[in-house]
Amino acid sequence: MNDDLVRRLVEASELHGDFELSSGRRSSVYFDKFLFLTEPPLLRELASEVAKLLPPGTDHLAAPEGAATLLVAAVSLETDLRVAVVRKEPKAYGTRSQVEGHAPAGAVMVLIEDVSTTGRQVRRAAEVLQTAGVTVARIVLAIDRGGADHLRSAGYDVEAVAVLRPTG
Amino acid sequence: MNDDLVRRLVEASELHGDFELSSGRRSSVYFDKFLFLTEPPLLRELASEVAKLLPPGTDHLAAPEGAATLLVAAVSLETDLRVAVVRKEPKAYGTRSQVEGHAPAGAVMVLIEDVSTTGRQVRRAAEVLQTAGVTVARIVLAIDRGGADHLRSAGYDVEAVAVLRPTG
Repeated sequence: MNDDLVRRLVEASELHGDFELSSGRRSSVYFDKFLFLTEPPLLRELASEVAKLLPPGTDHLAAPEGAATLLVAAVSLETDLRVAVVRKEPKAYGTRSQVEGHAPAGAVMVLIEDVSTTGRQVRRAAEVLQTAGVTVARIVLAIDRGGADHLRSAGYDVEAVAVLRPTG
Repeated sequence: MNDDLVRRLVEASELHGDFELSSGRRSSVYFDKFLFLTEPPLLRELASEVAKLLPPGTDHLAAPEGAATLLVAAVSLETDLRVAVVRKEPKAYGTRSQVEGHAPAGAVMVLIEDVSTTGRQVRRAAEVLQTAGVTVARIVLAIDRGGADHLRSAGYDVEAVAVLRPTG
């Protein structure tokens, strides 16, 4: 883990207060991931660290829709690998697809997520990719807030740039 | 307009069939913007063209949530400008904000959109930014499918990398 990068990620994005998480739980600390993903020097450096965690043989990248698309775009520019974006629901018009971009059946993909606390959202995205015939070779989290445990229990290979577990 | 880039954008993303657009209209041609935004050489080149269309004095970039976040990330890495992402609705948890990332009051921003047919979605995003105290100095479209007319009528300065108007 790159301690200096982790310190700067936290400084850029750690908010203190009373927050309701997507899981419904409350937390006194909230990582506003947009604050580091929209800061170009941090985004560039984080993308470079994520790229180092891609296993050999990775031929595509993927991310759930939302903030993680900022990160996956940067990793794509760093690695020249094509990208798939996984919607929560199939698109309501146009192509009506749930997996956007490039996700050919048989592709060996790495799924990239910004912050994962429960692992639930990224696991759903992984399952959508697998249903589309894609191999999810690894899940790479920018910040593991606990989600990696759940994802490893579900059988996924998980790496993280930073591990910052909730303290209470 | 860079004719060779426009030709490659179209080749990468133009689908033929019977499509329902977000406006409810039907079209025999559909630009699957994800197909060019997830292809790193095209994304890199498009971001460079968008960067050339930023007016002097631009100090932040913005994009509506969705596919355009891939493009705005690439433009941010190209220009080192910070980014704001405008949600369709305020976030349901965490910070509960509608504008994510960096959008300080008084900022001079350029709003970036991938493809605009009616201009409606990007206009709503511009209005959200203005309500937050931001100046929208210009709207830059990767592909203008007609939306620029509506946006100019509403008083916005609009530029586009490619103009591809619906033919029927």
